[in-house]
Amino acid sequence: MESLRRPRLTPAIADVRRAVREGLLAAFEAPDAADSPLVLVALSGGADSLALAAATAFEAPRAGLRAGAVVIDHGLQDGSAAIAARAAEQARGLGLDPVHVVTVAVGEDGGMEAAARTARYAAFARLQAEAGASGILLGHTLDDQAETVLLGLARGSGPTSMHGMATQTGPYLRPLLGIRRADTVQFCADAGLEPWRDPHNADPAYARVRVRDTVLPVLEAELGPGIAEALARTAEQLREDSAALDEMVLEFIEEICEPAEAGIAVSAAALAANPAALRQRVIRFVVQSEFGVTLERVHTLAVARLVTDWHGQKALNLPGVRVERSAGLLVFTAA
Amino acid sequence: MESLRRPRLTPAIADVRRAVREGLLAAFEAPDAADSPLVLVALSGGADSLALAAATAFEAPRAGLRAGAVVIDHGLQDGSAAIAARAAEQARGLGLDPVHVVTVAVGEDGGMEAAARTARYAAFARLQAEAGASGILLGHTLDDQAETVLLGLARGSGPTSMHGMATQTGPYLRPLLGIRRADTVQFCADAGLEPWRDPHNADPAYARVRVRDTVLPVLEAELGPGIAEALARTAEQLREDSAALDEMVLEFIEEICEPAEAGIAVSAAALAANPAALRQRVIRFVVQSEFGVTLERVHTLAVARLVTDWHGQKALNLPGVRVERSAGLLVFTAA
Repeated sequence: MESLRRPRLTPAIADVRRAVREGLLAAFEAPDAADSPLVLVALSGGADSLALAAATAFEAPRAGLRAGAVVIDHGLQDGSAAIAARAAEQARGLGLDPVHVVTVAVGEDGGMEAAARTARYAAFARLQAEAGASGILLGHTLDDQAETVLLGLARGSGPTSMHGMATQTGPYLRPLLGIRRADTVQFCADAGLEPWRDPHNADPAYARVRVRDTVLPVLEAELGPGIAEALARTAEQLREDSAALDEMVLEFIEEICEPAEAGIAVSAAALAANPAALRQRVIRFVVQSEFGVTLERVHTLAVARLVTDWHGQKALNLPGVRVERSAGLLVFTAA
Repeated sequence: MESLRRPRLTPAIADVRRAVREGLLAAFEAPDAADSPLVLVALSGGADSLALAAATAFEAPRAGLRAGAVVIDHGLQDGSAAIAARAAEQARGLGLDPVHVVTVAVGEDGGMEAAARTARYAAFARLQAEAGASGILLGHTLDDQAETVLLGLARGSGPTSMHGMATQTGPYLRPLLGIRRADTVQFCADAGLEPWRDPHNADPAYARVRVRDTVLPVLEAELGPGIAEALARTAEQLREDSAALDEMVLEFIEEICEPAEAGIAVSAAALAANPAALRQRVIRFVVQSEFGVTLERVHTLAVARLVTDWHGQKALNLPGVRVERSAGLLVFTAA
């Protein structure tokens, strides 16, 4: 066991530990020593979360934090309970405490992958409250980020679908988003840790697996190395750009909206005075927040043309919302 | 010849003509009938520019415009003069007038593709002035746009590198950016026009050819159809987002900058008060406009940390520019 806990400081181990250290510092600047907040590593037993668990066991105490783990048993594969038990054992061997194993029931909504994700995050949220944890650490790597961006690109719903994952979303921290998956594999080898290989990760029925095993290698081969890093970098900048634009929308949305009979009205002149990106965000924001409807781009553009190309169009009847220009206002009402 | 000039109105012909009509209307709203501005179609003889030439010959007079063509002979292939002469003959057959054939000398800077492009656009600019043309029409299709986005993604310099091409940049119009390349091929078949097949378009030495022949088909096969459209849509939204952010930067850059000894200074507090995307754009803009240096993202972020993570850092010596924080200002001087 000693060799597990005090591995030689190889480059992979140093890189992963540094990423975890920086992630913890960014989220928990100078934690109260008396309090010593608890973070839980979400551990599947795969190389990425196992490396995360080992690095967190090392770094958390040095950052004034306690570190435990949570292992989810989705019950989707034969022997899943034994796999979860083994991961929990590895977590304890790394010195993580407490270690929770949570069995969840996976529904069928939106396909198996999405249902498993929903069940998993619900369990995280429950456990976070029960265990009084201040953060849940997730083992997503740069490769996961690149895959997410390509999957978003394939959906084609614009920059927003290519944001990828944030380093922090509420209690969820992703300190390994700058680390290659191969480095987590190397970390485990260097640290004498035996990761579990999820057979789902090799099943081409999943779009993500096809992106990993086919699409990214073709992109690398044809367009040169560094594609995964390029995708991750792009995601980061897209997040920043959208955050800035969203902030601007929130700053002026109050000024340009007014209540209307059974709906809301927005000044056409104010919309016209703004660049297209802002105009369209305001339109989408109003429809989303008032009617709970997410406009497709083609519909957003049709509404925008009531401002940019006004020639007396009739009311637009869109899914879930009706938009009419009247007396210098765009009037939105429920459809 | 009659059958060439009056083809049956097939879906491909209708789509391409509509795209050209809308492009011309957007660029030349109600042209002066006495003046009758001239547009020149940049014709290689390939299916996309040949379809563009035929559709422009049909639509331009109906939009109050005169339409000619320009054929560039790059002199890079055996028989290039004959290929150019044949394209010019096709243009005349379509009724375009005047038809110019321009022979250019292609240098070697930045590789053959880039050098040919530079020579071509220089010739366009010269001819535009000499012929008194109001616009140059380029045959780039939705497929070209998708390829450009993927090539930009591979460069990985962020959202800006994925903008693709604009429907209008100065005198250059790209009315076919919403049209699939296959539709221009179909247009030519339907219209009895014989396009030239550029052997360069099948040479895998070019990254663009590899994207077209290998990368995009793999993306379509693994992630479902509609990838090219998704990429083009994403490019359009990225252009809009960047335009809005650039506009904001220009709006407040004057307020927050002041001259400094041998350089320029920016208020750290003003930079801190803005979202990351704007802060970084201001930094890049200042360095670009004052020192002619394009900062890499890693350097931009280092400068931003003088604002967001200030703990008394020393001056940053970056390629071409030195940045120091002093008395609440970021002071930029030439390196």
